[in-house]
Amino acid sequence: MMARENDVKGAGAAHDATPDLSQAALIALDWGTTSLRAYLFDAAGKVLATRASTAGIMNLPVPAEEGGFDVAFDEAVGVWLAQAPGLPVLAAGMVGSAQGWVQAPYVETPAGAQALVDGIVRVRAASGAEVAVVPGVLEPGALPNVMRGEETQIFGALTAAGTVSGADSGASGATSNVDDTGDAPPALIGLPGTHAKWVVVEGERIARFYTFMTGEIYAALCAHTILGRTMKHPVDPDTAAFLRGVSVAREQGCVGLLATAFSARTLGLTGQLAADEQPDYLSGLVIGHELAGLEAALARRDVSLAACAPQLIGAEALCERYRLALAQFGCDGARLVRHATEHGLWRIAVQAGLVTPR
Amino acid sequence: MMARENDVKGAGAAHDATPDLSQAALIALDWGTTSLRAYLFDAAGKVLATRASTAGIMNLPVPAEEGGFDVAFDEAVGVWLAQAPGLPVLAAGMVGSAQGWVQAPYVETPAGAQALVDGIVRVRAASGAEVAVVPGVLEPGALPNVMRGEETQIFGALTAAGTVSGADSGASGATSNVDDTGDAPPALIGLPGTHAKWVVVEGERIARFYTFMTGEIYAALCAHTILGRTMKHPVDPDTAAFLRGVSVAREQGCVGLLATAFSARTLGLTGQLAADEQPDYLSGLVIGHELAGLEAALARRDVSLAACAPQLIGAEALCERYRLALAQFGCDGARLVRHATEHGLWRIAVQAGLVTPR
Repeated sequence: MMARENDVKGAGAAHDATPDLSQAALIALDWGTTSLRAYLFDAAGKVLATRASTAGIMNLPVPAEEGGFDVAFDEAVGVWLAQAPGLPVLAAGMVGSAQGWVQAPYVETPAGAQALVDGIVRVRAASGAEVAVVPGVLEPGALPNVMRGEETQIFGALTAAGTVSGADSGASGATSNVDDTGDAPPALIGLPGTHAKWVVVEGERIARFYTFMTGEIYAALCAHTILGRTMKHPVDPDTAAFLRGVSVAREQGCVGLLATAFSARTLGLTGQLAADEQPDYLSGLVIGHELAGLEAALARRDVSLAACAPQLIGAEALCERYRLALAQFGCDGARLVRHATEHGLWRIAVQAGLVTPR
Repeated sequence: MMARENDVKGAGAAHDATPDLSQAALIALDWGTTSLRAYLFDAAGKVLATRASTAGIMNLPVPAEEGGFDVAFDEAVGVWLAQAPGLPVLAAGMVGSAQGWVQAPYVETPAGAQALVDGIVRVRAASGAEVAVVPGVLEPGALPNVMRGEETQIFGALTAAGTVSGADSGASGATSNVDDTGDAPPALIGLPGTHAKWVVVEGERIARFYTFMTGEIYAALCAHTILGRTMKHPVDPDTAAFLRGVSVAREQGCVGLLATAFSARTLGLTGQLAADEQPDYLSGLVIGHELAGLEAALARRDVSLAACAPQLIGAEALCERYRLALAQFGCDGARLVRHATEHGLWRIAVQAGLVTPR
């Protein structure tokens, strides 16, 4: 079972600053481009402590060629390893990319958890610890797609026995080890964010996935086009303006974002959209176009978005926006999955034999 | 007849620096956001001289509230008015916007040339000259569209008797005055650029139009997203990479730009797209999405893009890119229209009675 995470650097979380290392069984790292989060697990899969830093692979405390990965690693988990030097260490995310600590080549779709385990690459830290690095996933083709880190969250979401919406997932079956080749129905998993992913899972394998540059393009539109000039960011999110944008994207989707985006300006010019409605309206437009594109991609394979019950992984407020937007597409069954990262890291560590669950 | 333009500030154009003002009959200004271009016409509609500056309405030499428009106006055409003080002056473009010299309220679609003439608003310069300002056009609706400046180019293109591709339009019927209510077949006019416009003209009226933020979003993608990080801009445009992008957008159009844009990165990651192919590939993607969106918008009204013979107004190299991209959509009849701005300014001036053609 997995406890709610405690960030030892977070305000008010000092009660967990000195975990009981005698119970520790695994260190696992979610090491991305701009952040590093470390989890300390006991042998039952419970998170004893977490530590967070901004030492992402593009934000190391010293340059990589001067040992930046070792420095960041020591700062993150050295205090744990000093007390429990033999702990196994697993890491997932951009740390395994070409710009990472060690390159863990992509596993190709369809990719199950065992394929990820088989693709693990190891790197020896200067301190002597061996770090097992989870590979990313590549879907080859005319429009290739890649992920690093999300694959671990996805297997975490698939592992979690109970996914919830609006309540804490206090206990879940993090130690279950589902057969890769099972015949579970296809699942759709969404990971909103800078580069949003939508992943189709068939038979416990990542069958195919799509990347939408939604968060990054939204930010560029706000900061670096004429649309930002008339915007005022409201104190509270404007859900009505957001849903209006989703609706326009859905109804006018085929004209494309290049055209509908201009309406954030012209609706303002014609007095139909206030300055402080424009940011959320535009957010609704881009997320609406993402979902319209997803709907079209699924339809090519005779899958109806409306008939899916997607699991959403990500920041809670953003996932809630997606849940509302999905409902406009007739997709009412979306639900938030919490702790997917911890679940996934634990599952892969178990399956890789790094830790034996009790 | 209208001669090829001569920019008196351009290198090697000094032969036209002192036009014969005794022949002058009209001054016309194309006054946009970032530039100002002035034309001196004789009474036959021939351009005697042009003057260009960067004093667009957002780039005035002194602030607007300190007389910036007067200063820019004097710098642009004071030398002509000093010799021929009674010349009528017409201006089109953003100079008539809410941020301009005087606001010329939008004329609503369907809008013919006479509606533009009826919507002219006049402003008196400090020097005493009266400037007639052409209004922009608004298409009301759920997704309003606006233009300022393009309406003048459009009527210029419609006026031009001979539109050409690959040859100079030395002579054309700039003085013709086509009946607004004629029953000419619908025409499609494209104006590529920062905010590309596609305009459907029916019976010599602007019936409806679409704006695609193609140029501006392309620039934002290159400069302010991860896609720019791996790009190298080639010495010469890479037409093959461009057409590859168009093809991907056309075939995968429904998934949308948010998704296809990521392929500029993943094709690079997987060794299928060189760094110096990425800028033109992405350019092809965005222009391809624009044309896919246009095709869908036209199809809603049972118009086939492939069956159109669009006229293109804009920079010649960019229009040639669009001609190649349109051909991928089965639209082979696109042709470049030159001097649309001068033709349009002249036509509106004549129709407004500012000048009597001989």
